[in-house]
Amino acid sequence: MHVIVVYDVPAERTHIYRKLLRRRLQHLQYSVFFGELTEGQVTQMKNEIEEELESDDSIVVFESSNPASFDHTTFGASDEPGSRFT
Amino acid sequence: MHVIVVYDVPAERTHIYRKLLRRRLQHLQYSVFFGELTEGQVTQMKNEIEEELESDDSIVVFESSNPASFDHTTFGASDEPGSRFT
Repeated sequence: MHVIVVYDVPAERTHIYRKLLRRRLQHLQYSVFFGELTEGQVTQMKNEIEEELESDDSIVVFESSNPASFDHTTFGASDEPGSRFT
Repeated sequence: MHVIVVYDVPAERTHIYRKLLRRRLQHLQYSVFFGELTEGQVTQMKNEIEEELESDDSIVVFESSNPASFDHTTFGASDEPGSRFT
């Protein structure tokens, strides 16, 4: 299934989620990851997120089980994500 | 259809997209918007994005035309989005 994960966490904790999410997904933007995963991989990823979660963290996982009905459009720069933020 | 919009733009331009996207979508996280729109509304929103677009901006629009196959899970804080960034 298609998966999008976005995080909003304190700056000193971004590296934890970046590492966790990069294992399975493509780094699309600063705090946005995107990819194609199996249901098992999604479950495992969610477990890993829960293990890392602290009170100030916010993560949202979007899932689309029907790739045929899912589409995305990119506007503008597609250079190295987060380059402006590092 | 379900729509997710994420932006990665220079800080001084975030207010432009925040205003544009808040007209139709819910502000889920710092740079992430989410909602249910008609195809016409999506087209109109994309036109508006293109009108505002400058060379450093990056915006991704995800669309799922089958709400039944779409789901999202939120982990952690769900307080006012972007509160940590302002």
